[in-house]
Amino acid sequence: MSVVAPSLPSAKVIHVDTRGAVILSEESPQTRDSRGIYLPNHIEPVSHIAVDVGGSLAKVVYFTRSPEPPSSPSIAATRGSSVSDISTPRSLSPAEDAALSAPSSSTPPNNNKNGALTPLVLEHPTPIGNGLSGLTDNLLRDSLLKHTSAHAVQNFPGGSLNFERFETDNIDTCVEFIQELIQRSAEVNGVSIEDMRKSVKIMATGGGAHKFYEMFRDTLHVQIQREDEMECLIEGLKFISLIPDEVYYFSDELIQSVSHPTSTSVASSSSNPTPLERPSPDPPKYGVTFESNPTPQLPCLLVNIGSGVSLIKVDEDGGFERVSGTSLGGGTLWGLLSLLTPATTFDEMLELSERGDNSTVDMLVGDIYGQDYSKLGLKSTMIASTFGKVFKKGGEKGKFSAEDISKSLLYAVSNNIGQIAYMNAEKYNLDRIYFGGCFIRGHAATIATLSYAIRFWSKGTKRALFLRHEGFLGSIGAWIRNIDSESTN
Amino acid sequence: MSVVAPSLPSAKVIHVDTRGAVILSEESPQTRDSRGIYLPNHIEPVSHIAVDVGGSLAKVVYFTRSPEPPSSPSIAATRGSSVSDISTPRSLSPAEDAALSAPSSSTPPNNNKNGALTPLVLEHPTPIGNGLSGLTDNLLRDSLLKHTSAHAVQNFPGGSLNFERFETDNIDTCVEFIQELIQRSAEVNGVSIEDMRKSVKIMATGGGAHKFYEMFRDTLHVQIQREDEMECLIEGLKFISLIPDEVYYFSDELIQSVSHPTSTSVASSSSNPTPLERPSPDPPKYGVTFESNPTPQLPCLLVNIGSGVSLIKVDEDGGFERVSGTSLGGGTLWGLLSLLTPATTFDEMLELSERGDNSTVDMLVGDIYGQDYSKLGLKSTMIASTFGKVFKKGGEKGKFSAEDISKSLLYAVSNNIGQIAYMNAEKYNLDRIYFGGCFIRGHAATIATLSYAIRFWSKGTKRALFLRHEGFLGSIGAWIRNIDSESTN
Repeated sequence: MSVVAPSLPSAKVIHVDTRGAVILSEESPQTRDSRGIYLPNHIEPVSHIAVDVGGSLAKVVYFTRSPEPPSSPSIAATRGSSVSDISTPRSLSPAEDAALSAPSSSTPPNNNKNGALTPLVLEHPTPIGNGLSGLTDNLLRDSLLKHTSAHAVQNFPGGSLNFERFETDNIDTCVEFIQELIQRSAEVNGVSIEDMRKSVKIMATGGGAHKFYEMFRDTLHVQIQREDEMECLIEGLKFISLIPDEVYYFSDELIQSVSHPTSTSVASSSSNPTPLERPSPDPPKYGVTFESNPTPQLPCLLVNIGSGVSLIKVDEDGGFERVSGTSLGGGTLWGLLSLLTPATTFDEMLELSERGDNSTVDMLVGDIYGQDYSKLGLKSTMIASTFGKVFKKGGEKGKFSAEDISKSLLYAVSNNIGQIAYMNAEKYNLDRIYFGGCFIRGHAATIATLSYAIRFWSKGTKRALFLRHEGFLGSIGAWIRNIDSESTN
Repeated sequence: MSVVAPSLPSAKVIHVDTRGAVILSEESPQTRDSRGIYLPNHIEPVSHIAVDVGGSLAKVVYFTRSPEPPSSPSIAATRGSSVSDISTPRSLSPAEDAALSAPSSSTPPNNNKNGALTPLVLEHPTPIGNGLSGLTDNLLRDSLLKHTSAHAVQNFPGGSLNFERFETDNIDTCVEFIQELIQRSAEVNGVSIEDMRKSVKIMATGGGAHKFYEMFRDTLHVQIQREDEMECLIEGLKFISLIPDEVYYFSDELIQSVSHPTSTSVASSSSNPTPLERPSPDPPKYGVTFESNPTPQLPCLLVNIGSGVSLIKVDEDGGFERVSGTSLGGGTLWGLLSLLTPATTFDEMLELSERGDNSTVDMLVGDIYGQDYSKLGLKSTMIASTFGKVFKKGGEKGKFSAEDISKSLLYAVSNNIGQIAYMNAEKYNLDRIYFGGCFIRGHAATIATLSYAIRFWSKGTKRALFLRHEGFLGSIGAWIRNIDSESTN
């Protein structure tokens, strides 16, 4: 947390006008989670760039003005059939399916990433910057926000929130990107680079905000403000869950079969309800439901899956605590699969896993029992031991296919996170569990496994919720936060 | 559970006389967990052999008579310094250290494994077997037990409980071993193989009791009785925890520093108590304490770590329920390390891990933050992501040492089990957590990691307890159970 905090917490946060917000269509499946969000009514008082530097990835968020959405609007928004009643699951449309799956098609890129920041000097001929105190700046900003409609005509209301991802190991590329963005913005707006730099603030979070602080400051020559990672995650969650069609979840037939035992899909009598199936790498098919009329959904548990995993309990009033974590996260899966398969990117690993059969490497209940262990309700197809067949088969690498290995380990890591998430949600009596972080990547098998684990362990009482911009919670939160630089750092 | 159960559950269990029981010294470090237990006062009314066939290992238990302990008595018993006050930790003696560690020395084998079963015909000229009902058999047995002292002179009271391990993939070796034991017993006792076979009963449990049932029956020509795996585990725990010096635990300085903040080892003031350190692959050194005066310690959580992991809640009255499990168990570690290291046995893998430095493969908090994340109490040395550096470093197999990989993954699997165990112990309000199963193998790093995870997460309120015969709970339980064959199968 910043050392000196303003007295009114609400003053710290940009009041983003999310009315009419739409998620833009993706440029390519690889950027599925980094589609722009068009905010037709938002005016940004200060040009700032948010960056969240994690262990593996650096995520950048910034706002560029444009009076119209820069490309085709959201598939969700154009569809016009958003589902508001969460009890009515809707099947995934082919377009959504493609959007949520690993790369399977390519769409032409649009140009919305080439927008420019608007330097503050253009909005206010008054020299803002060195001379003004934080309070004055805040007052000016509040005044701007109060007069949005009048101001809008003058200042081109609306624009896009843009998202970019870089590997932390190539942090230079990230810095160069920001440098070019600032330069281009100066040129487009016809101001000097010095004036532009004075107008730009970098809101930095994640571990890299500390590790790379000097490097960012000395290379970019702009003000760098560091923000606490967990606070940004929560701020980002609170904001992003207000965007229509951002939040989605997989709803399954199992829940229905438990809550509606007369359904034809249930074979057993109501006096002997079918138990929930054990989680499995081949879960039943789910429909996807998007939240078209989102409301802030607190309290909740936020499970952020990056290289490692943080579990954060969020109270109804937005207060939060990191209550648990596990080191078995995305970094574990990527690391293991980079040694055990020829895949060199995580998307390749996900693709491999889709074609795999985990039963060649995993020891199933049936492998041990030759049948179900019915007394305990353990089906013969349940995994008793992840990778449990490998040692028995001699542990020779060539014997096992990259596809099968990928499927087994993706499932194991996802299911383990789901299990730990459930236990914490139960402990703190939280029914909504949001999964964020760059591990998920909209990958259907990952989402299904996490959803299924939550459904299974909670006996259908808790729900796993997902976010289209799952990996950008921290950077969105840092973008939202706009504590005056004079009082901190 | 057997289809037809006797009306009195207590009649199902052999009343083993554990007075004066001692654990025999190990033959070699590899058989550390399979030392015999000498029971000077026990007489076995029926010769039976218990076998617990799991996914990876088959465990055999049987009793052989001898009026004297067959080799040097237990190091614990001869030492005469057993600790009964659990609040007084005692340091590991070199002998115990060797016993609890991976192979480091070799001692000459003794011959206590060559004993013979005593066929029932020698004890009772009355033809017991085909003709008698279960009830009569039970009455005879009870009568025998009531007259132990008189009977003892006649029937050589005392003998050893013997333990053997086989790989499930080589189940034939296990069957041959039992076959030879029966044959040798017939020869030693001068009875026909047919009479011997009539006197022998195989108590089989674990998944393999079902999978290999026909094979056992048709090869051995003896009665095979199947017992439920979980029931046997609990029965085994209840019995083995009565053996002096069987149960042990690691007690650490951390607990002391929390409960005795004036201790010199604590630098901080009492008003600002030092928080428990995060679990780490290099935990503080522990002293080992053995329970010399054991009492049945229920209720408890039993965490059985074999190829997979079962978590069983045991009530005060011995009732139990499998409340959770994870597929990330011994089979996972063995499988991964057999692909990622040159090791071909689990003991080799443990040895590798002792020389490893996990920080070359794991992403630590300091790698991300460049410092502690002190606001959350996350030290820079804490593991943020298991294997989190591997993908970043290009994922080339040759870059990472087998030692470092082994250390990282052993810690990750152990710590994950400890975390899930803690959460279940907390949920069911259980303070004692027994860890059993062949994964542990008395390996100091494994035990320390599990202990440390429980201490850390429970803030010192819960204790991890270990067992010298950790892998034999199921087979010991099957040996204890002796339901009459006529009424079941």
